[in-house]
Amino acid sequence: MTTNAAPASPATAVSPAGPAFRREHDLLGERDVPADAYWGVHTLRAVENFPITGTPISVHPRLIDALAAVKEAAALANEELGLLTPAKAEAIVTACREIRSGKLHDQFVVDVVQGGAGTSTNMNANEVVANRALELLGHPKGSYQHLHPNEDVNLGQSTNDAYPTALRIATIESARGLLRAMAVLQDAFAAKAVEFRSVLKMGRTQLQDAVPMTLGQEFSTYAVMLEEDRGRLAEAVELIHEINLGATAIGTGLNAPAGYAEAARRHLAAITGLPLVTSVNLVEATQDCGAFVQLSGVLKRIAVKLSKTCNDLRLLSSGPRAGLGEINLPPVQAGSSIMPGKVNPVIPEVVNQVAFEVIGSDVTITMAAEAGQLQLNAFEPVILHALSRGITSLSAACRTLAERCVSGITANEAALRASVENSIGLVTALNPHIGYEAATAVAKEALATGRGVAELALEKGLLPPDQLAELLTPERLAGTRR
Amino acid sequence: MTTNAAPASPATAVSPAGPAFRREHDLLGERDVPADAYWGVHTLRAVENFPITGTPISVHPRLIDALAAVKEAAALANEELGLLTPAKAEAIVTACREIRSGKLHDQFVVDVVQGGAGTSTNMNANEVVANRALELLGHPKGSYQHLHPNEDVNLGQSTNDAYPTALRIATIESARGLLRAMAVLQDAFAAKAVEFRSVLKMGRTQLQDAVPMTLGQEFSTYAVMLEEDRGRLAEAVELIHEINLGATAIGTGLNAPAGYAEAARRHLAAITGLPLVTSVNLVEATQDCGAFVQLSGVLKRIAVKLSKTCNDLRLLSSGPRAGLGEINLPPVQAGSSIMPGKVNPVIPEVVNQVAFEVIGSDVTITMAAEAGQLQLNAFEPVILHALSRGITSLSAACRTLAERCVSGITANEAALRASVENSIGLVTALNPHIGYEAATAVAKEALATGRGVAELALEKGLLPPDQLAELLTPERLAGTRR
Amino acid sequence: MTTNAAPASPATAVSPAGPAFRREHDLLGERDVPADAYWGVHTLRAVENFPITGTPISVHPRLIDALAAVKEAAALANEELGLLTPAKAEAIVTACREIRSGKLHDQFVVDVVQGGAGTSTNMNANEVVANRALELLGHPKGSYQHLHPNEDVNLGQSTNDAYPTALRIATIESARGLLRAMAVLQDAFAAKAVEFRSVLKMGRTQLQDAVPMTLGQEFSTYAVMLEEDRGRLAEAVELIHEINLGATAIGTGLNAPAGYAEAARRHLAAITGLPLVTSVNLVEATQDCGAFVQLSGVLKRIAVKLSKTCNDLRLLSSGPRAGLGEINLPPVQAGSSIMPGKVNPVIPEVVNQVAFEVIGSDVTITMAAEAGQLQLNAFEPVILHALSRGITSLSAACRTLAERCVSGITANEAALRASVENSIGLVTALNPHIGYEAATAVAKEALATGRGVAELALEKGLLPPDQLAELLTPERLAGTRR
Amino acid sequence: MTTNAAPASPATAVSPAGPAFRREHDLLGERDVPADAYWGVHTLRAVENFPITGTPISVHPRLIDALAAVKEAAALANEELGLLTPAKAEAIVTACREIRSGKLHDQFVVDVVQGGAGTSTNMNANEVVANRALELLGHPKGSYQHLHPNEDVNLGQSTNDAYPTALRIATIESARGLLRAMAVLQDAFAAKAVEFRSVLKMGRTQLQDAVPMTLGQEFSTYAVMLEEDRGRLAEAVELIHEINLGATAIGTGLNAPAGYAEAARRHLAAITGLPLVTSVNLVEATQDCGAFVQLSGVLKRIAVKLSKTCNDLRLLSSGPRAGLGEINLPPVQAGSSIMPGKVNPVIPEVVNQVAFEVIGSDVTITMAAEAGQLQLNAFEPVILHALSRGITSLSAACRTLAERCVSGITANEAALRASVENSIGLVTALNPHIGYEAATAVAKEALATGRGVAELALEKGLLPPDQLAELLTPERLAGTRR
Repeated sequence: MTTNAAPASPATAVSPAGPAFRREHDLLGERDVPADAYWGVHTLRAVENFPITGTPISVHPRLIDALAAVKEAAALANEELGLLTPAKAEAIVTACREIRSGKLHDQFVVDVVQGGAGTSTNMNANEVVANRALELLGHPKGSYQHLHPNEDVNLGQSTNDAYPTALRIATIESARGLLRAMAVLQDAFAAKAVEFRSVLKMGRTQLQDAVPMTLGQEFSTYAVMLEEDRGRLAEAVELIHEINLGATAIGTGLNAPAGYAEAARRHLAAITGLPLVTSVNLVEATQDCGAFVQLSGVLKRIAVKLSKTCNDLRLLSSGPRAGLGEINLPPVQAGSSIMPGKVNPVIPEVVNQVAFEVIGSDVTITMAAEAGQLQLNAFEPVILHALSRGITSLSAACRTLAERCVSGITANEAALRASVENSIGLVTALNPHIGYEAATAVAKEALATGRGVAELALEKGLLPPDQLAELLTPERLAGTRR
Repeated sequence: MTTNAAPASPATAVSPAGPAFRREHDLLGERDVPADAYWGVHTLRAVENFPITGTPISVHPRLIDALAAVKEAAALANEELGLLTPAKAEAIVTACREIRSGKLHDQFVVDVVQGGAGTSTNMNANEVVANRALELLGHPKGSYQHLHPNEDVNLGQSTNDAYPTALRIATIESARGLLRAMAVLQDAFAAKAVEFRSVLKMGRTQLQDAVPMTLGQEFSTYAVMLEEDRGRLAEAVELIHEINLGATAIGTGLNAPAGYAEAARRHLAAITGLPLVTSVNLVEATQDCGAFVQLSGVLKRIAVKLSKTCNDLRLLSSGPRAGLGEINLPPVQAGSSIMPGKVNPVIPEVVNQVAFEVIGSDVTITMAAEAGQLQLNAFEPVILHALSRGITSLSAACRTLAERCVSGITANEAALRASVENSIGLVTALNPHIGYEAATAVAKEALATGRGVAELALEKGLLPPDQLAELLTPERLAGTRR
Repeated sequence: MTTNAAPASPATAVSPAGPAFRREHDLLGERDVPADAYWGVHTLRAVENFPITGTPISVHPRLIDALAAVKEAAALANEELGLLTPAKAEAIVTACREIRSGKLHDQFVVDVVQGGAGTSTNMNANEVVANRALELLGHPKGSYQHLHPNEDVNLGQSTNDAYPTALRIATIESARGLLRAMAVLQDAFAAKAVEFRSVLKMGRTQLQDAVPMTLGQEFSTYAVMLEEDRGRLAEAVELIHEINLGATAIGTGLNAPAGYAEAARRHLAAITGLPLVTSVNLVEATQDCGAFVQLSGVLKRIAVKLSKTCNDLRLLSSGPRAGLGEINLPPVQAGSSIMPGKVNPVIPEVVNQVAFEVIGSDVTITMAAEAGQLQLNAFEPVILHALSRGITSLSAACRTLAERCVSGITANEAALRASVENSIGLVTALNPHIGYEAATAVAKEALATGRGVAELALEKGLLPPDQLAELLTPERLAGTRR
Repeated sequence: MTTNAAPASPATAVSPAGPAFRREHDLLGERDVPADAYWGVHTLRAVENFPITGTPISVHPRLIDALAAVKEAAALANEELGLLTPAKAEAIVTACREIRSGKLHDQFVVDVVQGGAGTSTNMNANEVVANRALELLGHPKGSYQHLHPNEDVNLGQSTNDAYPTALRIATIESARGLLRAMAVLQDAFAAKAVEFRSVLKMGRTQLQDAVPMTLGQEFSTYAVMLEEDRGRLAEAVELIHEINLGATAIGTGLNAPAGYAEAARRHLAAITGLPLVTSVNLVEATQDCGAFVQLSGVLKRIAVKLSKTCNDLRLLSSGPRAGLGEINLPPVQAGSSIMPGKVNPVIPEVVNQVAFEVIGSDVTITMAAEAGQLQLNAFEPVILHALSRGITSLSAACRTLAERCVSGITANEAALRASVENSIGLVTALNPHIGYEAATAVAKEALATGRGVAELALEKGLLPPDQLAELLTPERLAGTRR
């Protein structure tokens, strides 16, 4: 910093409240901060201003790590551009690396739901990094005349570029975890699809008996859905690799010197190992939440299909005696405090509920994104919170479903085959040979009398016995032989 | 109108486009309007400005009638206060009554989705009423120097009080229709509850066999749900009897003379037969959409429970052979273009879809309500549209479900009873007598061996035969005898 | 319990894992539980089965207290009916009172998002109460042969009546807190409405200058909205006083002896001080989530209006120089890490975000309610979680908004009055006297030339000076004098 | 069709009701159909069963055309495989082409909201095509022994592959229209971005004055958003090119001979000109609505950003005197029935409302998709309806916004520049040179005294005059020169 500044009053002073506190000041005046706190006056104000959920921002550890990565990258860029002394830069970098190694997370104390477009989270990070860097440089916490949270740690940045950039990095990391969890679940379904490939059963449309298929085909669909969803998620994650670091306050890059944006991006890509790119239009990028809305929409899609899948699992395993009873989910806990022996599909049920939360969060994120005004969206904190919560829960749900449910599913093979042989839906296979009208007559009679379709078709001489047998071959019916 | 006004250029003139048109003017200049149109230049602009859905506002006939009622009430109040000559008032009143008798609805041509907080719908009404009144007074359409859409028909009003007042009246009328339709459906379920009162079946929790009950108990719940929902709907409708007529532009009542608000309310109550009341705080009432949000929330509640009920009906009637097969829905159409004899639960399915629309519309209405700013909510048109659509569809859904499905449902009584006798869930009834631990052991063995609970309990000497028989009496199990 | 039961294997045994553990068993087999844990094997299974959010159910302390109240009421009812010995009953009651006094909450460790319709939460409660009661009776934890979680603590109950009853009590308590917080905010707005009662300003519709009003009128609307919302909330809370205790598994009351339901309700009402009533149709009550959907709809309504109010506050205080600048929110923290001196409306912003969460949660609750099947809704855990979170956040938001924002708002009175005097909207007041057409001409000229409406009206001789002055009296314009 | 079928009773007979009717029969019995109707008994049943919205399926003309394309492609494939005689195939193809040229659309009379997974729409199409084909072959309508709706027109198909395939084609066509409309709007914004490239103004974050930018930068963001959204929409549309024709009832391809799926796809691609591909897993494809959920999510994203953009336009044009007054939207209609001269931002307002509808529809589509069970989603009709409505409205909204609003926007250049010069936000530019602490002090004094930042900085000697002038150069501030 080249400075012609009037000598600022020292940022820190001894507090009259005694050695357990240090005195800091901001725009509004002076306040005492606990002497051992790495956070400072801005964080203190924020904690007081937002007593909303009681959940500190450290509940999202990937965001804390990502913020530290951004601060580190900025320090390296600023050093490179001669704006920060090597000593300061090194102290900041070391502090950031400590945070990224899991230290000092308990110093990130602002509420996850907060006003101010993330400023309080960013200020919290600036203060923690600054105070840790001051320690490393041999200065007491709060002696900001030596290294300043805003002038040094935040140098070349605004909340409005540093925070969304961190948010994106954190989200990429979380989403990668979800991609892995989905793959685990996909594999579990795929294994069952192979295991059940010869188990013949009735397919159903609109909950009414339709035509035969195999249980393997049914389970393969769940694997395919996850495969497709993973594709969509990967695409959505790709989009959030675009960052706006260097945009500063509104995207015009005010106070970020030439070369800064590119240097900071380069360092950040190196630190995170992510192929980050800088948005072409930084003004747009700074106000835009489109990529988060898109990602949330994909999470919703995943939730919709997981929920449908779990609905199916619960339905197919209904019983044990007065239900469909086609498959058995592994029992994982006693199901009732009053009904002995009852076992419930609790794992699919918890996945359904995660899905409902994600679908609700999509509305939260939608409204928050829509509420952005002019050059900034002030509601990114709730977007981050809802997205992170959803991704984390979905990841846990996928793994739990795979490990505690799908992998232990067994089939009631004999009953399934009997339901096919007993089915009126077999008549559809005769349709091309006896016509829709005649087939309808057979179906009606079968339903009314309780008799079998093959038996009736033979009796009426609609088809010769061998052709009938061929038409009703299980593999032919299920389309697994053509 | 006491007027010191400069002589206005006549509102209408011959159009150079020939006798098929008349020329009107507004703030923006002159435009030709079809000579036989009752609507005028403001409506023309709106039609051009909002080519959004292609659906005219006349698709909501109750709104048209309600607007006419408001215009009529205002004219009577203005006459009473000496602001409108008896001749003008009479012409306006007659025109409004014609509209309320179903005439001229085709003249309400602005799009249901429109900008401007309903101004275009109100302007459309003002113009239609004015031109019909002009005809009644022997003047050509468009000769507004004799009777003016804004100065006479809209006298003492603003869109911001006239339109929401009409919206409330229209909604009350629609909602009353829904209340009646729900009563029809409730009666249909109640009749089945009586019919099935002795049909013993297994109750289920979490799709797993639980303990016995009667099918009549099951159907009674659907009737009770509707009874409760009707109560909630009636309460929500009660709230929208509060109107803001007399508020004019922002609730300060500017240009509405003393006595006008009360006189207009009195006439409107008489015309509609509704116990309307005027809001205490008209500034608040003019900007507030809370009553619509509340009503939409209740519609959503109704939708949620109807959907749940239809899910149950579809599940209980699943089959005919590979499903639960507990009840039979009356067949109402062939179910498949390829599967002969297949019959699907199409009536519950259409009700589910109506429910999904209503639930989605609740989000639309929520966002529209939240987007109101300062003294007005500009988005009432989409609120009206979504509410009206939902109420109308729900009404049709309730009646259709009652008449084409519920009233024809039959039970597969023997199979239902067998499922109880065969059930492991019976063990719960032994619980207080043999203990949860012992009962759990019996249940496990029954499940593993396929044997009956009573049989095992006897064999193990857990209970004497007569006590066992008493405990397993159907009526006792279902709680219908105590 | 009258028991002919085979002697059950002792519920607890020494664990081979050593004295730090005790061995328990359930339907699935044996497991070691930490010896000092008050929870047991069912809780252990649930913790393993639902590693979803990492947030234990104890995050909702009112639910824990309410569960303890239910267990206490049940024990008293069971003692009264001779089903539980006075010694056991006393031990259970004492344990429950300890919990309600805030002890043992850390023993409620199952995840807030869980499968099983609340069974795990109920089992967790049964186990904690049982083990604490065992201690009180001088027995070691886990010696369930002396007092059993299911047979004694859960006696006469099922999760399906105990859990929703607790949920309702907890929600009533939370909602009462919200009602109080809303009253605080209402008072803050009402005080400002009085303070600003003479501050003249321009009212706006559709963000365009409309007609004059007072800032007091504007603030009064926020107070009125809260008043109305409190009324709706109180009504919705009233509905959840209806409980289904005594319904047991599916509402048929199986295993709940005659008199139990009423005795339990009576004790529960006494314990909680709430006027609880038992549902008439317990089968319906056991499956129905309508009252929660209704309550969530009302929370959404509150959220919608709070969000609209905060949007207004942010808009009216926009500036300081390039915004509307009508009011000043008290500064509560520095607004920017890069822009010195910037202060942002962070308190309204955090309230907006709470509103977005509540609106999203309404969709979650809607889906969870709709997904109920047959005799039970398995998804009540996520309903409880979303409701509790919303109510708690809304309470915090209301108090924060009142105390840190509204109570410190000041008005820029001179600028506000100037904006009225300078306004074209004044012309509306002349409308009844010079006509809509002439007034339109004046307005157009004023806009084009930048001149004043009064000046132009005078110049054109449209009105005599004294009448003009009278028409433009501030109090007359704002409707505060009539 | 090789048929050993019993001679079916003739499908049609003379009706006792006279020559105005013909008699048809189905599974449920006989019914009279108007003699001149191209639709038949299945359509009649559906019309009676679904009196829900009163809106016939023909309101979505692209769906009708797409169904005809599917029927045409199937006929050509069947002919190619020797399953349909050339004469029948030709008649069917001709009938389909007539429909695609816009004829017979009025014969598609089933309600847009219907049960049955689209069966009624498909049956309606089968009947219309069959009866028109019969006419072309010289047979009377209803003489299905010559050409049968199900056996010939629907040959090799099920509703469950034909209907979703048509739905996809229709949606592709609609979405292409939306892509074009978005491009028009993007161009309009881009043109304004160029026009306003030198108009300096204050940027705002959180509605508070931030730092300078140009109006051109602001408008460029709207163009960039649309560019990005178009990219996402194109990707989502790409996904729905995957069809399941050949899947028949549940994806096993029962009754679709070898080679049929590929031949039908090839013909359909040729007819529509679309690069359609057949899904690899047809069982999955038949039940999956993921692509529609994805598309709906993208529509929601577009809606979110359009709504944000319109919120900005309304805010920036607020006034004319008591608002921000930065830009002027072209007046398109008089804004008020009571306030002369008032002009409102009605075009952005209508776009907001379209956005709210699309966002609500996303919830409808989400719920409908989640509700699918096992091998089919029965709720595709409401998905189609909501998607089509949304796409059509968004297209209209984009074009209307471009043509009636954006293209006519003008800027209040002088006032904008003055707001920059007068701004406290200028101090941010001094930040790197005088430090955050000193800059904060200047900002505080400027705010308190009403004085200018430059003036204060000079007075305090913080920077030399020439450096100050350089730092405050407009182009430098806006980042348009670096």
